[in-house]
Amino acid sequence: MALTFEHVTLGQRVLFGAGQAAENLVAEVARFNAKRVMVIASGAGAQVAADVSSGIQVAVNYADVAAHVPIEKAEKARAAAAGHQIDLLVSIGGGSTTGLAKAVAMTSGLPIVAVPTTYAGSEATNVWGLTEASRKTTGIDDWVLPATVIYDAALTLSLPVDLSVASGLNSMAHCIDSMWAPRSDPINQALAAEGIRALSHGLPRIVEEPQDLGGREQALYGAYLSAVAFASAGSGMHHKICHVLGGTWNMPHAQTHATVLPYVLAFNAPQAPDAAVRIADSFGSDDSVAGLNRLRTAVNAPKALKNYGFAEKNIPEAVELILPVIPASNPRKVTPANLTELLTAAWAGTIPVI
Amino acid sequence: MALTFEHVTLGQRVLFGAGQAAENLVAEVARFNAKRVMVIASGAGAQVAADVSSGIQVAVNYADVAAHVPIEKAEKARAAAAGHQIDLLVSIGGGSTTGLAKAVAMTSGLPIVAVPTTYAGSEATNVWGLTEASRKTTGIDDWVLPATVIYDAALTLSLPVDLSVASGLNSMAHCIDSMWAPRSDPINQALAAEGIRALSHGLPRIVEEPQDLGGREQALYGAYLSAVAFASAGSGMHHKICHVLGGTWNMPHAQTHATVLPYVLAFNAPQAPDAAVRIADSFGSDDSVAGLNRLRTAVNAPKALKNYGFAEKNIPEAVELILPVIPASNPRKVTPANLTELLTAAWAGTIPVI
Repeated sequence: MALTFEHVTLGQRVLFGAGQAAENLVAEVARFNAKRVMVIASGAGAQVAADVSSGIQVAVNYADVAAHVPIEKAEKARAAAAGHQIDLLVSIGGGSTTGLAKAVAMTSGLPIVAVPTTYAGSEATNVWGLTEASRKTTGIDDWVLPATVIYDAALTLSLPVDLSVASGLNSMAHCIDSMWAPRSDPINQALAAEGIRALSHGLPRIVEEPQDLGGREQALYGAYLSAVAFASAGSGMHHKICHVLGGTWNMPHAQTHATVLPYVLAFNAPQAPDAAVRIADSFGSDDSVAGLNRLRTAVNAPKALKNYGFAEKNIPEAVELILPVIPASNPRKVTPANLTELLTAAWAGTIPVI
Repeated sequence: MALTFEHVTLGQRVLFGAGQAAENLVAEVARFNAKRVMVIASGAGAQVAADVSSGIQVAVNYADVAAHVPIEKAEKARAAAAGHQIDLLVSIGGGSTTGLAKAVAMTSGLPIVAVPTTYAGSEATNVWGLTEASRKTTGIDDWVLPATVIYDAALTLSLPVDLSVASGLNSMAHCIDSMWAPRSDPINQALAAEGIRALSHGLPRIVEEPQDLGGREQALYGAYLSAVAFASAGSGMHHKICHVLGGTWNMPHAQTHATVLPYVLAFNAPQAPDAAVRIADSFGSDDSVAGLNRLRTAVNAPKALKNYGFAEKNIPEAVELILPVIPASNPRKVTPANLTELLTAAWAGTIPVI
């Protein structure tokens, strides 16, 4: 089979080290020779932000952060950055915090040093999102890609185990769906495979020993790779399904992803043998689906859509909404019949098998 | 074990497609909105360059290319670029051609679109090299990293099989040595592992069927990954050994690398179990050394240093020169005794085993 692809690698510096966020931030601020730093962190993250930025001079501590980056909040933050002649943005927190920094970078061209405290992954992408009149728009702009990401697993120790698991399985979905997404290529597949490996090692350790840094490090590293792979490969069948379910029946994001993933894997794996082998290898298993099921058991993953607000009677409408958005790149042809079967199994929580 | 590393990902666009170089170059010139293109290609590569650039307007065809980029040649090329108000550099050829384009980019800041026709790998790195009074200096400068690389395996069909094998094994050495080089990290290890996989598939196919594009594609893809991994991880024990041997006894580059590699792998693997597993997996083997030996047999790889101008009596001097330059990151402690043993085996061509 001919090897034909276009792959854009985004240039970024990653500093990874538990307990080293503060010293790494000092080094980065010096590297940028920044004099007027704006630290963006939510009110809830104020203490963490204070600790991480304790070694640098801060011109503005900015805390007016909200989910999905409302445009008013973005404009207020942009004005603050301009008013204080900011020369470097430092975001410390989850997806909403990184998102606000991106909104400011978008119009100002200011560099971002991102210090993620969750597995959101936004810090590793050039994707921005803004919400106006409760409508979310997203776009791509290399200006919003953080120049440096500082990962410190110690900052994730406070993430509750169930949230860590759901969010980690959401990252796992990014990796697995990257194997057959529209812009899937050997490079983002290799990074996705490494992400699967790291997440499958890390998540069970978080469940066994929530305060063990080793498991948190593997999960955080895997979440980073999943974001890199996903941003490069795009949304595959899995994400199209979850997007419809979440948007139409207002289902919880991470749990929906965690539940649907094994059914999509079992659905596509037989028609995507190379991807299936890669995924299985990354799980250290002979079979991709068995490997994922073993992990889901170990972390007691969400099991059935019926537990998250999706009713059996919704299946026909879901099929109608999902079918037209399935990417042409999907390895297996999706029909009303086999998609109904998939959703019925996911609704009921039947153990997915090939 | 704590996961602590710094990884710098270099941003670059890669267009990979057999027989598509000319059309991909047209698209890139348009993307850069370039009006004054300088095409750099050696005299020997003139025909290939003419074919590849047939679809674009060329301001200057520049052919004064020499190995190791002599400074005089670099300055002449820089003057030509300035004199013709060049706005885009297109290099079509091997390492020397890419190297000259880098020398021009270094002082002009002009973007480079590189079209490699060998496995040199320079197109994927930010490393430049210049030779003054027969002394070669190298350095790192992000300006010299080609913005876009256009890979077209059809352009490599004319590479003789033995040269393809030696050069492919040289790329393999980049991948394997990346596993324990000074800046080795999980990300460049994952890319190196993917490179080993691609090279181990591609090289035997080139030997069996030199005109088969599939094998050439895998080898070219693997060579790209090996350059990315090596530029990120740096020189490990293997490259230090080969650098001393090549420099002191003027031994052939690719053959020296191809011969030494299995002995370094057998030397380090027992002390680097994770790397050994990754390498073995990439070879589709249970054992890293066995996997490499199997490949070397399949491609009839160079076997003994004694065939390439290295005499047994040189071993003590080699040990003296190599010992002080072994990186501290090497997984196994190197002593005069075990290094003598390694070089004696490599000199004789004894099958390397753990």
